[in-house]
Amino acid sequence: MKPTFSVRLRVFNLNCWDIPYLSKHRTDRMQRLGDFLNFESFDLALLQEVWSEQDFQYLRQKLSLTYPDAHYFRSGLIGSGLCVFSRHPIQEIIQHIYTLNGYPYMVCHGDWFCGKAVGLLVLHLNGLVLNVYVTHLHAEYSRQKDIYLAHRVVQAWELAQFIHHTSKHADVVLLCGDLNMHPRDLGCCLLRGWTGLRDAYVETQDFKGSEDGCTMVPTNCYVSQQDLGPFPLGIRIDYVLYKAVSGFSICCKTLKTTTGCDPHNGTPLSDHEALMATLYVKHSPPQEDPSPAHGPPERSALISVLREAWTELGLGVAQARWWAALAGYVTVSGLFLLALLCALAVGGGAREVAMLLWTPSVGLVLGAGAVCVFHRQEARGLCRAQAELQHVLRRERETQDLGSEPHLAQAD
Amino acid sequence: MKPTFSVRLRVFNLNCWDIPYLSKHRTDRMQRLGDFLNFESFDLALLQEVWSEQDFQYLRQKLSLTYPDAHYFRSGLIGSGLCVFSRHPIQEIIQHIYTLNGYPYMVCHGDWFCGKAVGLLVLHLNGLVLNVYVTHLHAEYSRQKDIYLAHRVVQAWELAQFIHHTSKHADVVLLCGDLNMHPRDLGCCLLRGWTGLRDAYVETQDFKGSEDGCTMVPTNCYVSQQDLGPFPLGIRIDYVLYKAVSGFSICCKTLKTTTGCDPHNGTPLSDHEALMATLYVKHSPPQEDPSPAHGPPERSALISVLREAWTELGLGVAQARWWAALAGYVTVSGLFLLALLCALAVGGGAREVAMLLWTPSVGLVLGAGAVCVFHRQEARGLCRAQAELQHVLRRERETQDLGSEPHLAQAD
Repeated sequence: MKPTFSVRLRVFNLNCWDIPYLSKHRTDRMQRLGDFLNFESFDLALLQEVWSEQDFQYLRQKLSLTYPDAHYFRSGLIGSGLCVFSRHPIQEIIQHIYTLNGYPYMVCHGDWFCGKAVGLLVLHLNGLVLNVYVTHLHAEYSRQKDIYLAHRVVQAWELAQFIHHTSKHADVVLLCGDLNMHPRDLGCCLLRGWTGLRDAYVETQDFKGSEDGCTMVPTNCYVSQQDLGPFPLGIRIDYVLYKAVSGFSICCKTLKTTTGCDPHNGTPLSDHEALMATLYVKHSPPQEDPSPAHGPPERSALISVLREAWTELGLGVAQARWWAALAGYVTVSGLFLLALLCALAVGGGAREVAMLLWTPSVGLVLGAGAVCVFHRQEARGLCRAQAELQHVLRRERETQDLGSEPHLAQAD
Repeated sequence: MKPTFSVRLRVFNLNCWDIPYLSKHRTDRMQRLGDFLNFESFDLALLQEVWSEQDFQYLRQKLSLTYPDAHYFRSGLIGSGLCVFSRHPIQEIIQHIYTLNGYPYMVCHGDWFCGKAVGLLVLHLNGLVLNVYVTHLHAEYSRQKDIYLAHRVVQAWELAQFIHHTSKHADVVLLCGDLNMHPRDLGCCLLRGWTGLRDAYVETQDFKGSEDGCTMVPTNCYVSQQDLGPFPLGIRIDYVLYKAVSGFSICCKTLKTTTGCDPHNGTPLSDHEALMATLYVKHSPPQEDPSPAHGPPERSALISVLREAWTELGLGVAQARWWAALAGYVTVSGLFLLALLCALAVGGGAREVAMLLWTPSVGLVLGAGAVCVFHRQEARGLCRAQAELQHVLRRERETQDLGSEPHLAQAD
């Protein structure tokens, strides 16, 4: 039996842009972030792009009195970059590493090496079970020609599935992070639709901060016009999302963002803007709890989003298979070339040329072989997510045919 | 409100040894497996090592009347090999791919390429929420010198965590699969201790089958003495594990295994033995439900298992770092060698020898570099699991210090 009460939660979220050797004024920004978090004393501070474990340890030590519990989510070669500082004891921890996360040969983008993930913390506050998720999805490097769109949609689906399956016992669900998606992007609609999470920026009555809630703005001196692409006034890609299950209600009393400047010193804490939300959770009888994902229009919208995601992943599969086939042909051609070079070297005529071409040919065969293997694996990963989406759509059709309560009414 | 009733569940589990080009009598065995499953009409048939999607499609078609719902869990390059056939509609599906699964350069073992995973199906039977998990962990190729031990312990921990976090809403939890661990192995104790799952072979009053419940036996013509290693009489590595939450009770009425022979034709269905369990679930008032993981002795045993796992992973981390360092030195040495070869080739003296050695040197640098990167990633993965174990142990210590109800009492 849950008690009748109201709990206030003050939450901080920031993509810290803490990349060793690459990010500007790293040490100074981390120091000021620590001071700010200590000064504000939030219930939870959720950070992304902390790609230096030393910086996490520095913050952990600095914040140890105000935030006694902390966790760094390790993954991939560099790390997920995710960490969390909590005023309340963290009861349980688990993380899920996304199965698709860009391409290893796109070294300049580097997402593949990070092992992007979602971390889950379970907190117990006055008998309330609170599931807090923190994540960072694959970056969008070009809006016009987004080669990572299918991967981001799969990540959004995996995130939604992970939340759906791990939060069935929770009273309140909170998701913070850098989704690298605009509010109306397919992945964002899929995530909100499948989990029933609500957007703090849309829901709050009291918003203060950057125009349209943008979290990358041109007034931030670390942001270039190139980063904003076709949105020179800014983009909103960082979020605080939440929901409460039947029996509880949650509302966002206030939401603030930084506006390209540090709240105290005038220079930004990061290239992203921080989000600061004050949430209130209270006990509410089940019948009074209006859940936005239960009506037929919402269900119909969700089905259309699921279908769109399925189609998008289909395009991704075709693309991945095309690349795998191309790399396969190159591998075979490289093998023929190697055989030819061997013959030339043995024959004697162009021996030196043959030996000079030997190394690049071996490289070609191995490289193309690896690319072929990688894209075959990618196609399989995309097919897997597609099969899950197809299963949901089939279940919904069957349930509708039977005329019973639709299966998709699962926001809580 | 759950109704008062009793549900019978007949479950079949088999590692099918269905590896294209490698397994003997594949087509014939798959045909006979289909016939047997149709004849027996189980509630659920959970299969591992179905590494041919065509064979899954063949079974799906053959079993479509008896088992209207089915799912194949895709992952990795070859696939997880997991699939399921169900007499009841599968409500929901999700899978988790283990983050550590052997080494890509151990091509002869091949586990790395399979993408070993755990699949979850949610079924609703007469209002009962049933979470069914199917899995296959990394093989043990040598009992005496098991280089994959740390990986298997991490997989067992990830499996236990996945079950723990996704089954909080379930009434009954069922796990079937090839764990590649003996009943008293560290990973097996960790899994049972952390989830509270009970072993059908230990619990049942009515067991019929191979001696000591072994699932790889010397009487099976596909099993060599080399497969059994130091256990010539057989090993038990395939399991049916289960638990019910408070309010329900579950018991294993009968458990049968095949005994190296097909039940009808005399030749085995696989190199593993099949498990066939009949389980009964019934409503039972919470106070009457004795849960085996609640007493202080069980908690103390679990803590000692968690500590042992933490230590084992520590050894794994040291080993991974050693390999990463060695590969790093080889990479740097290879780079020096390449520079020397360049100088020799330019100098003219040993030009031909230098050019001949150029390809193996480039191969050495790239290969050692890749091995270094892989083992650094491995060390990070092991550290991540270690951090989760450490968090559990720290929470337990803190709770004990406060003198409150221990945190580890979480079997249901």
